[in-house]
Amino acid sequence: MVRRSRKRTRRSLPLARVYRLLETGPVVLLTTAHRGRMNVMTMSWHAMPEFEPPLVGCVVSNRNLSFGALRSTKECVINIPTVKLAETVVKCGNISGRCKDKFAAFGLTALPASQVEPPLIAECHANLECRVVDTRLVTKYNFFVLEVRKAWFDPKVRAPRTIHHRGRGEFMVAGRTIRLKSRMM
Amino acid sequence: MVRRSRKRTRRSLPLARVYRLLETGPVVLLTTAHRGRMNVMTMSWHAMPEFEPPLVGCVVSNRNLSFGALRSTKECVINIPTVKLAETVVKCGNISGRCKDKFAAFGLTALPASQVEPPLIAECHANLECRVVDTRLVTKYNFFVLEVRKAWFDPKVRAPRTIHHRGRGEFMVAGRTIRLKSRMM
Repeated sequence: MVRRSRKRTRRSLPLARVYRLLETGPVVLLTTAHRGRMNVMTMSWHAMPEFEPPLVGCVVSNRNLSFGALRSTKECVINIPTVKLAETVVKCGNISGRCKDKFAAFGLTALPASQVEPPLIAECHANLECRVVDTRLVTKYNFFVLEVRKAWFDPKVRAPRTIHHRGRGEFMVAGRTIRLKSRMM
Repeated sequence: MVRRSRKRTRRSLPLARVYRLLETGPVVLLTTAHRGRMNVMTMSWHAMPEFEPPLVGCVVSNRNLSFGALRSTKECVINIPTVKLAETVVKCGNISGRCKDKFAAFGLTALPASQVEPPLIAECHANLECRVVDTRLVTKYNFFVLEVRKAWFDPKVRAPRTIHHRGRGEFMVAGRTIRLKSRMM
């Protein structure tokens, strides 16, 4: 409980760089379908307020085409890629669905979902079919709360090498796994 | 845009296991101070709705002692540990502050913060001093929106090996870094 002064080794960080410290969960591809058109965007910021039923809070900027689709249709699929798909993930993040059919342009395969209209991406090792269940923080923070209604995974992919955005073109690739005696779920 | 049927290799996943796929950002230690008492808890779920000013949305369960402190004082510090501190991080997650002074029990050093009352943890490579700025989703989802007011880092720690909770005692340790031509911040 002893308080010492901050050491000289502790430096102040500009607030605009904080996001590079709080490196995200796995970068995912979010698919939507609106007015007969599928789209896919790259998403980095998500967190789960509840495990069962699984709720995912996520940030979809209102600058993205997917924002309107998600707000109107209240449906999406979260697709989780591994490092093999890293180049494609970045391409999906660099361009808007307004300019390009990203499925065709980047060779992504759409599979039908079971509970929602947007497609699963076959090249991803897991896919979560979601419905929007809370929009109270959408206007202020672009923050949607989703409920996962159906989840798929590829049993052949063990210890998936997910990618994690560190900002400015830097991605951390999932490393080794350690086991500890945790009581946390 | 071609839709194929789901292959036989794609399997359904029980919804209660979804959280193990959406592996989180770095596990962090959240410090609070309430009625003259400091506490520390292990937190896994956070996401940033905004980079500047940096906003962090995070889930603090109402079963945790820290929940009441955070709701009353509206202040906390997010401390980011590396794998060196993994055993301590798990111990902090396994026990409640109601039972134990975790700073004393686990040898954590409290340093004074500059903008808030809760302490920085000296053993962590970065520390974010935060104020609660939105509580609309607290009652329903235990979801707080924080604004980072001051950020500290240890310049000696390069490429920090953060730990990432995969559930049930499994943690992924941050692996190698790759660089891609991303236009994403």
